[in-house]
Amino acid sequence: MKLRPYLTTRSLMPENQETPIHFLLRESVFPARYFFRRNHFPFPELESSDLFIHGQVQRPFSISVSQLKMMPSKKLLVPLECAGNQRAKFTPPIFGEQWKDGAISQAVWTGVSLRELLSLAYIQSNAKEVIFIGADFGKRQDMDGLFYYARSLPLEKALHPDTIIAYEYNGTPLPFKHGFPLRLIVPQWYAMASVKWLKQIIVTDQPFTGPFQTIDYVYYPYKYSDEDKKPVTTINVNSLIQSPLDYSTHRAGTLLIEGIAWTGSGRIKKVEISVDDGKTWEKAVLMLCEQERYAWIHWHFAWNVREKGEYTILVKATDSSGRTQPSVPIWNRKGYGYNAIQNVHVKIE
Amino acid sequence: MKLRPYLTTRSLMPENQETPIHFLLRESVFPARYFFRRNHFPFPELESSDLFIHGQVQRPFSISVSQLKMMPSKKLLVPLECAGNQRAKFTPPIFGEQWKDGAISQAVWTGVSLRELLSLAYIQSNAKEVIFIGADFGKRQDMDGLFYYARSLPLEKALHPDTIIAYEYNGTPLPFKHGFPLRLIVPQWYAMASVKWLKQIIVTDQPFTGPFQTIDYVYYPYKYSDEDKKPVTTINVNSLIQSPLDYSTHRAGTLLIEGIAWTGSGRIKKVEISVDDGKTWEKAVLMLCEQERYAWIHWHFAWNVREKGEYTILVKATDSSGRTQPSVPIWNRKGYGYNAIQNVHVKIE
Repeated sequence: MKLRPYLTTRSLMPENQETPIHFLLRESVFPARYFFRRNHFPFPELESSDLFIHGQVQRPFSISVSQLKMMPSKKLLVPLECAGNQRAKFTPPIFGEQWKDGAISQAVWTGVSLRELLSLAYIQSNAKEVIFIGADFGKRQDMDGLFYYARSLPLEKALHPDTIIAYEYNGTPLPFKHGFPLRLIVPQWYAMASVKWLKQIIVTDQPFTGPFQTIDYVYYPYKYSDEDKKPVTTINVNSLIQSPLDYSTHRAGTLLIEGIAWTGSGRIKKVEISVDDGKTWEKAVLMLCEQERYAWIHWHFAWNVREKGEYTILVKATDSSGRTQPSVPIWNRKGYGYNAIQNVHVKIE
Repeated sequence: MKLRPYLTTRSLMPENQETPIHFLLRESVFPARYFFRRNHFPFPELESSDLFIHGQVQRPFSISVSQLKMMPSKKLLVPLECAGNQRAKFTPPIFGEQWKDGAISQAVWTGVSLRELLSLAYIQSNAKEVIFIGADFGKRQDMDGLFYYARSLPLEKALHPDTIIAYEYNGTPLPFKHGFPLRLIVPQWYAMASVKWLKQIIVTDQPFTGPFQTIDYVYYPYKYSDEDKKPVTTINVNSLIQSPLDYSTHRAGTLLIEGIAWTGSGRIKKVEISVDDGKTWEKAVLMLCEQERYAWIHWHFAWNVREKGEYTILVKATDSSGRTQPSVPIWNRKGYGYNAIQNVHVKIE
């Protein structure tokens, strides 16, 4: 009997579907049917698959996918996390896609280092940012007109050797819904940076002001003022209990608590579990994989529970940059970067 | 580009998956891939497809599916709603499957009136209840041993001409996951009554005391006492806003509010919408279908909204038995029968 989970739909136009993350235990690489889908616009119709590199460069050029595939490539195991992942957990609530835990997935991406590609164009010394334009476009609710999905990276991040133009997903061509034929992959940044259906790269000496750069994907700490806003970039340190499920019941004995932890700055150093509302914490076992710099890590904790009753399980990760998950979520008007300590309620019968 | 919703997984062992009800607007009949799945046990292995009718009857007998199909049949458009539908909305929260809005689906069921079938067995005059035993069995968390899924109906409900032994779903044989080859369909009762993979029917002169009759599917008003408990039977009057989605944003203008309403006692008579926190209510347009006694009705309401801001939309249904949805949910320890007025939050930009 085939038992399998499916994507959870948050909206269909555009398509936004969440990965069933609690049912993909101990998986490092998700097949495309389980990879979350996050779109701003209808799926694009692809005209040309050539990528055009221009702007503040000495030698603008176009390159075809087959030419790109002849360049030296690298394979990276990288999680993509939507900046709005877990938005539904903020209080007061936030309008927008009500993502729960599953706007995060992981796969192996094969592609060419953007640095290599840009070196062929000879970037001019006044370059400050690199703009990436996808083939997807459409209307916005808050402004008139049509907009392409476009984002920029500061030059330093664009030239990081692991920022790649990917053409393969888990060893096969990119699935159409995940950016075929070419997409950007920006490890350690929230996934709004990893532009799909990439068709143009523009080197610029000006800060890019597109709406997905300056209106969306910005942390606004206040409801009615734009003061102290700052751009969404690096993924916050975070962790998730995949099992047991929230509000599930279990028999007394040993209950295996399992999940993942990830960060955009350095490595996960510690995952701790509390079953007494944060009074005491115990270390979970980390399944480290040294050669994977960016991947999430799996962890587990065997909890010996003898007394019947209702319990709250908390999980907290700490990374090598010293960052740790906050007890209280850092509320912001558009609901990005949620990484508060998770709580899962269980009843022992 | 194929855009479609999927079932939302609540658990896989046993399989419990919710229908994507918000993305099935104006549909009266769901294909099997969108019908919610609610199981207590692993899927059964079917040995014999004969149905055995015995107990307090003069002529116990077995009947095969092909014999059953030769009897007079009826087709009924009947919604099935899990008694735990919307459980996740109770406060304080309730342990168990965290069903949101989608533990409800509707289909056309073809089958033989149980009344006809029982008449062939000659029920004895001391008969009080009829027990239905499915082929699915397994362990329970709260008791040792193995249990079949079994439920009883009072004789009166069992003999209602529309209580049927169904063998077809939307004109084709029952899907395996929905009870193939035979399942009970009990219109107007929550779906725990509509036993799947039906293999035995026992007429009895005693109240049935199986755990799915006397432990589960009972309203317990108090957390720590069993006082005032009563069995879960008839579906409560209820309604659902399918569109707009909760916490969605819209432009000012006419926003179409759409959904369904249903009841287990009589017909839906009125559906009302409030956009001012319940101070005033306006009637929605009902799409009535007189010949369908049990089906949910579709309704809509064109809301003219000019002022930007955040709004809460409320919906309230009233049925012909005079029942209406309560403002505050009627909490009960196992979380059954949720039917409080729904609220959907929208932001007009």
